[in-house]
Amino acid sequence: MLKSSAVDLEALAQRASERSGVRLYGRSVARVLSALLQTGDFWQVVDRAALPVPGAAAIVEVLIEEGLLARQGDDLVLTEAGREAARALGIRPPERHACPACEGRGVPFWADRALYQTFLALAKDRPESVQEFDQGYVTPETTVARVLHMASRGDLDGKEILVLAAEDDLTGLAIALTRRAKRVLILDIDPRLIAFDNRAFQELGIENAEARVFDLRNPFPEEWLGAFDVFVTDPPETPRAFRAFIARGIAALKAPGSAGYFGLTLRDASLFRWAEFQRALLDYGMVLTDILQDFNVYEIWPYHDQTRAARIAPTRRPPQAPWYRSSWQRIEALPGFRGENLAFTEEDLREIYLDEESSTT
Amino acid sequence: MLKSSAVDLEALAQRASERSGVRLYGRSVARVLSALLQTGDFWQVVDRAALPVPGAAAIVEVLIEEGLLARQGDDLVLTEAGREAARALGIRPPERHACPACEGRGVPFWADRALYQTFLALAKDRPESVQEFDQGYVTPETTVARVLHMASRGDLDGKEILVLAAEDDLTGLAIALTRRAKRVLILDIDPRLIAFDNRAFQELGIENAEARVFDLRNPFPEEWLGAFDVFVTDPPETPRAFRAFIARGIAALKAPGSAGYFGLTLRDASLFRWAEFQRALLDYGMVLTDILQDFNVYEIWPYHDQTRAARIAPTRRPPQAPWYRSSWQRIEALPGFRGENLAFTEEDLREIYLDEESSTT
Repeated sequence: MLKSSAVDLEALAQRASERSGVRLYGRSVARVLSALLQTGDFWQVVDRAALPVPGAAAIVEVLIEEGLLARQGDDLVLTEAGREAARALGIRPPERHACPACEGRGVPFWADRALYQTFLALAKDRPESVQEFDQGYVTPETTVARVLHMASRGDLDGKEILVLAAEDDLTGLAIALTRRAKRVLILDIDPRLIAFDNRAFQELGIENAEARVFDLRNPFPEEWLGAFDVFVTDPPETPRAFRAFIARGIAALKAPGSAGYFGLTLRDASLFRWAEFQRALLDYGMVLTDILQDFNVYEIWPYHDQTRAARIAPTRRPPQAPWYRSSWQRIEALPGFRGENLAFTEEDLREIYLDEESSTT
Repeated sequence: MLKSSAVDLEALAQRASERSGVRLYGRSVARVLSALLQTGDFWQVVDRAALPVPGAAAIVEVLIEEGLLARQGDDLVLTEAGREAARALGIRPPERHACPACEGRGVPFWADRALYQTFLALAKDRPESVQEFDQGYVTPETTVARVLHMASRGDLDGKEILVLAAEDDLTGLAIALTRRAKRVLILDIDPRLIAFDNRAFQELGIENAEARVFDLRNPFPEEWLGAFDVFVTDPPETPRAFRAFIARGIAALKAPGSAGYFGLTLRDASLFRWAEFQRALLDYGMVLTDILQDFNVYEIWPYHDQTRAARIAPTRRPPQAPWYRSSWQRIEALPGFRGENLAFTEEDLREIYLDEESSTT
């Protein structure tokens, strides 16, 4: 497909990779070019190209240096040479066939109207996201769809469910609202969320749900190990965080057939990272049963301009529309599964939120 | 949750496992009990429990022996003891929240009406499925949704696409109908399907698509190795077939970022098998990007009563409604990926379609 005059995507990827420390290949550059045929907004390019922010930013810079792309104020605009390169490479604008009725999740958030409406009414008073805890919450439609997806997998009725360190999404609250779980234990480091949940449980007379302040960098007490049918989390995406959150979630599971749910992006992690995580999950004795891309849609968080992502972006304008989506994944425990319940040192902590791929905290 | 008087699910699973050779655990039995709270039709039980047919059949037999379940003609009916056991264990009927607009796929088959209608018109004259080649095709809505899902992942426009040994679904035909791929090569062992496709391409003036008779048990010629951006297949689900079809599909891919699509059931394979396949994919240098449960819905095949599944079923009535669904999975090649292009001997062949888990051929 490459003509002698055509742009060498692999060479551009190599340069962007050296600059950013993010592993990239020719198709990464092709995805950015494809996105740029449709939008000039950097954050929408990241969304469409599904690349770690530092990687997408480095590709944009390299394209600008090559004269294929130009900045026009806060917009990115392909030059004539850039458009010609895309044409020569057969690159077309991206398209996304997402069902409008269920927002592409396959699971319709409106299938349980009472749950959706109760959740909406409660969530309007939720605590705002703060950067200190890597917060940033998903839309109410996302949260309710997570619960209905769990119900579809048989992971709700009569189950003991642990929600760990992701309660900015209020997933634990939504699960408890169904009154179908046997027990819901919600752990989060942020006392505002814990108080918010417990107040709701008290007002609504929900007795089998409890929220507790807990820092996931500490190991679990013995009583939580092997005690749950299901865990739900949405961790930072560094390898360290994966061990602190997901491996500990696995350690909390009871038996083969127990399940875990977690989010994973291609905005703060690469497919290389995904492959490492997939191997780790198999080593823990877990099997992946669901990977639903773009299931989780995040509201724009108020501290965007304080993030590394904003600092390294090639344009200054903050996101104008949702751009941060993540996949929702389900894993199931096979016989012999085992998690990890590690303690983390002060030194470990520094690496938990940020690394070369992860930039939105 | 278990009371002293309660049924020991793990012990029942163990017995069913020894009988069938399919690895099962307590939750497998719980899933069958849950399904039986909703339906008395064995094939619908298999669908809801998402277990290999021989495993589900063995669980049903054990439940009957224990007096928890009874046959009433061709229906399976929980006894009072069975209902009481389900209650004591907190087991509830299954539920499935699938969006009615997109049939739960997230990708609406009607998003490209012209494609859907053209495909429907052509497919009404398709060759009927035959047992010799493990055929059994998905609904037209499934086939069209596969193509739109590929488009959403950037795996259609300008791509060289290999469709291997799954053309009973007419996925290659549907891809070619979009006229958006650079090249479509369709391989299938069944000359009827090859002739059907080539006739359509000729009548419609589609010049960049070609169908060829090919037996996937043979290795690929050199010219197909490293020659495609995308492969699509829907193989039998034995480890042998996995190597013959998927490993060879990977060998046909060009570069990092190239992608593969395949179906995988929980009707002819267990989650243990899934875990083995997931590890093999990582070893080939591939990463899983999508696992969409129940994406593929199969029409009931005409030779059902000739299958091992029918012979081992605890009831004689054939399926009355679709019961065979499978997940649709996407994998992407990372740098250093490599497939396999093995030849298979006469001895290998016997294992390609049937083993302890696989029974529908």
